[in-house]
Amino acid sequence: MKRKLNEECGVFGIYCQDHVAVAPLTYLGLFALQHRGQESSGMAVSDGTQLRLHKGSDLVPKVFSDEILEELKGHAAIGHVRYSTSDTNLPENAQPLAVDSAFGQVALAHNGNLVNSAELRQQLARSGAVFNTTTDTELIVHLMAQQGGSLEDALVKTAQKLTGAFALVVLAKDKLIGVRDPFGFRPLVLGARLDGYILASESCALTNLGAEVIREIEPGEMVIIEQGGVRFRRYAEEKREAFCAFEYVYFARPDSNLLGQNVHQVRKRIGAALWHEAPVDADIVIAAPDSGTPAAMGFAEASGLPFEIGLLKNRYIGRTFSGPSRELRELGVRIKLNPIEAVIKDQRIVIIDDSIVRGTTSAKIVRLLKETGAKEVHMYAACPPYRYPCCYGIDTSKEDLVAAKYDLEEIRRLIGADTLRFLSVEGLVGAIGLPKERLCLACFNGDYPLVGACCDCEKGEGAENGQ
Amino acid sequence: MKRKLNEECGVFGIYCQDHVAVAPLTYLGLFALQHRGQESSGMAVSDGTQLRLHKGSDLVPKVFSDEILEELKGHAAIGHVRYSTSDTNLPENAQPLAVDSAFGQVALAHNGNLVNSAELRQQLARSGAVFNTTTDTELIVHLMAQQGGSLEDALVKTAQKLTGAFALVVLAKDKLIGVRDPFGFRPLVLGARLDGYILASESCALTNLGAEVIREIEPGEMVIIEQGGVRFRRYAEEKREAFCAFEYVYFARPDSNLLGQNVHQVRKRIGAALWHEAPVDADIVIAAPDSGTPAAMGFAEASGLPFEIGLLKNRYIGRTFSGPSRELRELGVRIKLNPIEAVIKDQRIVIIDDSIVRGTTSAKIVRLLKETGAKEVHMYAACPPYRYPCCYGIDTSKEDLVAAKYDLEEIRRLIGADTLRFLSVEGLVGAIGLPKERLCLACFNGDYPLVGACCDCEKGEGAENGQ
Amino acid sequence: MKRKLNEECGVFGIYCQDHVAVAPLTYLGLFALQHRGQESSGMAVSDGTQLRLHKGSDLVPKVFSDEILEELKGHAAIGHVRYSTSDTNLPENAQPLAVDSAFGQVALAHNGNLVNSAELRQQLARSGAVFNTTTDTELIVHLMAQQGGSLEDALVKTAQKLTGAFALVVLAKDKLIGVRDPFGFRPLVLGARLDGYILASESCALTNLGAEVIREIEPGEMVIIEQGGVRFRRYAEEKREAFCAFEYVYFARPDSNLLGQNVHQVRKRIGAALWHEAPVDADIVIAAPDSGTPAAMGFAEASGLPFEIGLLKNRYIGRTFSGPSRELRELGVRIKLNPIEAVIKDQRIVIIDDSIVRGTTSAKIVRLLKETGAKEVHMYAACPPYRYPCCYGIDTSKEDLVAAKYDLEEIRRLIGADTLRFLSVEGLVGAIGLPKERLCLACFNGDYPLVGACCDCEKGEGAENGQ
Amino acid sequence: MKRKLNEECGVFGIYCQDHVAVAPLTYLGLFALQHRGQESSGMAVSDGTQLRLHKGSDLVPKVFSDEILEELKGHAAIGHVRYSTSDTNLPENAQPLAVDSAFGQVALAHNGNLVNSAELRQQLARSGAVFNTTTDTELIVHLMAQQGGSLEDALVKTAQKLTGAFALVVLAKDKLIGVRDPFGFRPLVLGARLDGYILASESCALTNLGAEVIREIEPGEMVIIEQGGVRFRRYAEEKREAFCAFEYVYFARPDSNLLGQNVHQVRKRIGAALWHEAPVDADIVIAAPDSGTPAAMGFAEASGLPFEIGLLKNRYIGRTFSGPSRELRELGVRIKLNPIEAVIKDQRIVIIDDSIVRGTTSAKIVRLLKETGAKEVHMYAACPPYRYPCCYGIDTSKEDLVAAKYDLEEIRRLIGADTLRFLSVEGLVGAIGLPKERLCLACFNGDYPLVGACCDCEKGEGAENGQ
Repeated sequence: MKRKLNEECGVFGIYCQDHVAVAPLTYLGLFALQHRGQESSGMAVSDGTQLRLHKGSDLVPKVFSDEILEELKGHAAIGHVRYSTSDTNLPENAQPLAVDSAFGQVALAHNGNLVNSAELRQQLARSGAVFNTTTDTELIVHLMAQQGGSLEDALVKTAQKLTGAFALVVLAKDKLIGVRDPFGFRPLVLGARLDGYILASESCALTNLGAEVIREIEPGEMVIIEQGGVRFRRYAEEKREAFCAFEYVYFARPDSNLLGQNVHQVRKRIGAALWHEAPVDADIVIAAPDSGTPAAMGFAEASGLPFEIGLLKNRYIGRTFSGPSRELRELGVRIKLNPIEAVIKDQRIVIIDDSIVRGTTSAKIVRLLKETGAKEVHMYAACPPYRYPCCYGIDTSKEDLVAAKYDLEEIRRLIGADTLRFLSVEGLVGAIGLPKERLCLACFNGDYPLVGACCDCEKGEGAENGQ
Repeated sequence: MKRKLNEECGVFGIYCQDHVAVAPLTYLGLFALQHRGQESSGMAVSDGTQLRLHKGSDLVPKVFSDEILEELKGHAAIGHVRYSTSDTNLPENAQPLAVDSAFGQVALAHNGNLVNSAELRQQLARSGAVFNTTTDTELIVHLMAQQGGSLEDALVKTAQKLTGAFALVVLAKDKLIGVRDPFGFRPLVLGARLDGYILASESCALTNLGAEVIREIEPGEMVIIEQGGVRFRRYAEEKREAFCAFEYVYFARPDSNLLGQNVHQVRKRIGAALWHEAPVDADIVIAAPDSGTPAAMGFAEASGLPFEIGLLKNRYIGRTFSGPSRELRELGVRIKLNPIEAVIKDQRIVIIDDSIVRGTTSAKIVRLLKETGAKEVHMYAACPPYRYPCCYGIDTSKEDLVAAKYDLEEIRRLIGADTLRFLSVEGLVGAIGLPKERLCLACFNGDYPLVGACCDCEKGEGAENGQ
Repeated sequence: MKRKLNEECGVFGIYCQDHVAVAPLTYLGLFALQHRGQESSGMAVSDGTQLRLHKGSDLVPKVFSDEILEELKGHAAIGHVRYSTSDTNLPENAQPLAVDSAFGQVALAHNGNLVNSAELRQQLARSGAVFNTTTDTELIVHLMAQQGGSLEDALVKTAQKLTGAFALVVLAKDKLIGVRDPFGFRPLVLGARLDGYILASESCALTNLGAEVIREIEPGEMVIIEQGGVRFRRYAEEKREAFCAFEYVYFARPDSNLLGQNVHQVRKRIGAALWHEAPVDADIVIAAPDSGTPAAMGFAEASGLPFEIGLLKNRYIGRTFSGPSRELRELGVRIKLNPIEAVIKDQRIVIIDDSIVRGTTSAKIVRLLKETGAKEVHMYAACPPYRYPCCYGIDTSKEDLVAAKYDLEEIRRLIGADTLRFLSVEGLVGAIGLPKERLCLACFNGDYPLVGACCDCEKGEGAENGQ
Repeated sequence: MKRKLNEECGVFGIYCQDHVAVAPLTYLGLFALQHRGQESSGMAVSDGTQLRLHKGSDLVPKVFSDEILEELKGHAAIGHVRYSTSDTNLPENAQPLAVDSAFGQVALAHNGNLVNSAELRQQLARSGAVFNTTTDTELIVHLMAQQGGSLEDALVKTAQKLTGAFALVVLAKDKLIGVRDPFGFRPLVLGARLDGYILASESCALTNLGAEVIREIEPGEMVIIEQGGVRFRRYAEEKREAFCAFEYVYFARPDSNLLGQNVHQVRKRIGAALWHEAPVDADIVIAAPDSGTPAAMGFAEASGLPFEIGLLKNRYIGRTFSGPSRELRELGVRIKLNPIEAVIKDQRIVIIDDSIVRGTTSAKIVRLLKETGAKEVHMYAACPPYRYPCCYGIDTSKEDLVAAKYDLEEIRRLIGADTLRFLSVEGLVGAIGLPKERLCLACFNGDYPLVGACCDCEKGEGAENGQ
């Protein structure tokens, strides 16, 4: 049975004064969010009377040429970038989804994952709905179309029926609406330029466009941007805030601030916490490039050990890499990660990676360092063991998680490191600098804020029911 | 206001024994129907448990590579080729349309045009439907999903709600269904191979696949092909048959037989009728290539005048022609149509074109012949003046129709011919060889068999209401 | 051992007044010659100070976009289209060839085949030449660069060293030169527009550009077009004219005139000659489309039998055809050639093809006609048996030639026809309407005008040595 | 007048035992050298009887698919990656160059720049040579073809006629030859695997393929690899070694060792030297990413100031970036370089860039840092002022060099920094760790080791004549 879509994505919305052409701004906003999804890119633009849609299964600059941006006329837009597992990378699943309905033309883009989607889909099919995709986004659109009243009211009623993680941007001919789920799992932040308002998954998309950050949309809140200005509307009680801690660990861009905390600084504090939790006798500290770098710097600073560059990531590896895959496998990871022998040889090395999920890359890195002459390799993960699959938008399954199957010593042996250390949950919370109650740490401690029918969350310890 | 889609298309369906891979056969069937639509091509294939869909905005051989055909596994399929006007050539409008619904996965392809689509769309939107396209096909799918009972019963109820022209092929996991509207505007013919059954818009797609023609689906009839075999089911009274006469004049491939009449032979008889209606003193008969050729041959045979080749169509002109458009315009039609001076010079020429719709090409041809030295040019159209827009699947608007705006002498002067002659409606009916009552001749005589809200048909003389 | 290049091609040259941008005109000229070569297209353009080159392995409209034509600035140009066998379709073999040398920048394009190329190549390599391609064109360029004096004089000396068939166009910054070999195997014709001069392989490229035909370049003659006007220069005694008869039979476009004879009319006379040489009792005459059509019309006219269309060539077959090749083979020729049963069934049919080279297509056609119900099939070839390979620019090898291996009755049996008839050499000469002494008929009668080391020509009966 | 080609490139060669397919290894070797050239990629492969060539104007993984690598059969190969200025990015200039000549098939790839190429070209043209490209590589091929004797002897005689910088790899059917110019301007290193030998511009291409470094080819030396093994042959007196110092500063990959010095370590020592030459009172040290990072780390270590990440390079900027260029310009450098405000704000910042050539990027970076709230910006360049154009393979012209036109204080004002510092020549030499006499420092001090007719080198102070 094919697995349901549950990917990490980025959303963007913009509403400007009439004379501003927003397609290039949306392009740049999506480009700033590209790290959140590389599989497909799309935008829908409104000129006040009509919506125009363009999307494709590629990076933002490949999907949008100057000619296409020229044709996407209008002063309001939403956009989306998507990461997905290979088996569900269907063009029809690209977002935004744009439809015609009793509300006229509406487009919608979504980051997150519903835990009651199977149930909703069944209900909708029974009432005569037809589905073109397997996305939660289409479910939301159908639900919305079946509510009466104004678009805004229909969206409120719809949001109240959804259980799970969602940060939505909705575009109609004359308005832009943003919605965040009652737990606030996924980020959504509002900013302002002189000529209009912007919604985005991360603040980096605002600052890259020269916009000022106003504030994050609150859990259970909706923001409506239209000709008259901005209005906020609360559609649900805030349950408990449960913001994804893994955004700090891996997803977000270092120059973004999330709930007031700068991501790069959090990562440096994580590195310092790692040292304080587990000091080690070593010669140098290096990072698994590039995502381990800030934690490695924080570790080096706290410990007084020198920070070094021991591994270079080949900057031409990427989407364009095809070629001799068998040869590549045989020659191993060193085509992608280039060790600097002059740095590594005969050294006792602390290497810091952002996280250890499946463990296979870590094992390759340790072997590469040892082959290059490292005397000792002490592997540190900049987060706790990832033991529980996520139901709120990160595509993970239990069988892939090395920490769900093995204990610390077993993993250390699999990886081949002399030492293996993970950060504690408390250490992570401390480094983030927010009260534990505002965070979702389910992937680390199994404490699912919301229980659905999707996966292991139903067996979560101490879990609270969502509805 | 953008006009609704109403194009000419080709549909295909096949249901074979389990071990036959039908994707290559569907490919060849669509290839045989390519003359009915060059803008997009698509197919949906069932392997008994799952439907797979592939479509694209290009010719059949461009859309389907060997690798793609390999992946489209299954023993039953439907396919579609589409012609469209440029402003509606959206990828999302390509067919088949495949959806998931209470009936499971269903795919549908459609040739024709509904006259009550605006009304149906409004009803559906009010009931909560959301639309991804502007096609009639999607309306049909929504209607179907809202009916209860089995797929077959739902399709019957749906067909009864549709007003207009439709030849449908529907694919579910375990069956193939064909439906033809109660007037039989658009063709749909059933054939058999040793290993299965085929439905197609024209018999040429059957004979090209080595299949025997069984019979045409009757107006108001449905055919169901499944594991047990073939069943026919009448879902509506036959109103009056109203088969499109323009299929004989222009659309159909010469080696197809429609309602028992071979298209090439009909066209030759049209040419003979032209001579008998309007004999002329001339030296040679030529055709506007390639579609005027059979009528020119019939004219030559009837008149005793020599049939000649005076104009060659450049066989490399086509989809691949880009390049210096300004130069091309200045050098005129002679890049595309190459006159043979040795044939044309000093001759009194009868030239026969299949039809004169906008008149611009005819004017260019006459000028080209005169510039090449023709002494006289007598232009004959192999059908009556095209005066009324079609509501049943041919994309025409009144303002484009030269015969809707000018009388015969005015058109002759616009075109610059020494003589201009059209066939009479009676002449056309006689050449087709069927009773006038079985044909739709609305584009020639305004006698719309079915009145809708779409266009001029409501003002049709002697029109009968559809519902 | 890989065979040397010897293909049929088309060449084009233009020299205009300074203000005329010739790239679009060259594009259209090459487009008019596209039937002479579909594998690669190229042009070199001079703006008086610099040559610009663009070429590619595709049809003219695919190789030249509007942007590229815009960049190819200049008032003089040469161009080339090339047909080649698959094993030598290397991009570096595309023409024109443009080089820098002691004469400055020079570009050259060539139609024909040298018979002393192996010997020339060896000599040149010994003197230090390096070769980037396997073409005769590059040999010619090297020879030219090794002569002293002016470009024109060097070209004269070079032409005197070449043995074989060549129609050359040469472009320098300030002049355009055309050269035809002393036998005149390959065509080259000069025309004039108000704003300049044009050279082309066929007159159709002149008339398509609105130019008047001046005259053919004579065998052993060179034409020099520069600022001051046109000059002719004889560089060799005319040996005997030996113009390729197969140009009339197959290569040339019907609207071209070659040595004063219109190709379409020659083909009609061939058809009439076939009837007079071998009358037959039959019901209808059809053509193997499209190249057999004029001869079939001539046959019908001469015999009084009705000319009919029995086979339609699928107009979408062509370069874009990929797809299910195995299925295609099994379903045979009928995907490509569509028989009209209503025409063929129960008839005694004369079918006329332009030529029978390998015989495989003829066999398929006969079987197709019989399967469709033809009572008798009488196959006529519009030329004599093709028995001897060509050394002068047509890519043929003896083992492919059915008439080199079998006698008439054997071929008839292989093909499966009730009758098989070829035109006599005398019949062909008569239909062409030129003295036999002006034609090369070597492929039909083995009478090679020029003997080289290339192939069977050395065993030619009555052959005259080239140098 | 168009400028001659003089670009930085990478070369690669491999010779294996008969059964090894070298195309995938060559692919990976070129991939490891991709940082030396992104404009075109190519390889020529020998199977002992024939050379096969493939090249294209794109990155290595785009030019070589698995299918193409499969077809490039053989056990010996050479390859090339090329960087070029936009006006000379012609496909025909891509390398290797493969030709047929008196020596049979030979392919050649070249890194460097000749200073006597104009003179050589003239001589060759006078002797009848024709040129297809404007590259030095083609000149070398022609010279070689004009020498008598064996290929090896011809190559010796050729190398003796060349003046300038060249690291060559030459492939014949049965041997691989490497040649380095008598000054050793450009790098070329020999390595060994169990199954054969490898030549490459940098050691990283050896270690990435699991090969051991044997040694660098010496200035004035040739290496011949054939069935019997490896031979070295001195063809010229070593003039004085003059290895390009800029390879350490910018070109080479950090994990390469050049003349025994690891590039990353040299760059760290450069950073330390900067601090010692010009200490400054500041809060943090950051790098202009990514090339300034090692020097910034060295500076931080030496000074005790914290190393920080203040600017993130957007990892999706690159070849794939098209899109809204006007918007991009207006929003400035911050789309490409993302400042981390939490790091930068209110800080006194030392920023280290590898070099300051035109100065425009530096000015943008300073403005960006100030806009983000930096209190002070102290800009350090990790090399001396780049004042003199390079004649030996780096594409520079005097008018682009900010340090050739302005003094230090003027540049500081242009850039807008509070402090501007360059490394001294002595500081650079000390950090490299080699005697000054072994290095070419001409771009910094105008001391051209070799004088040609190419550019400013003729006015070089203390320059020695090349021949």
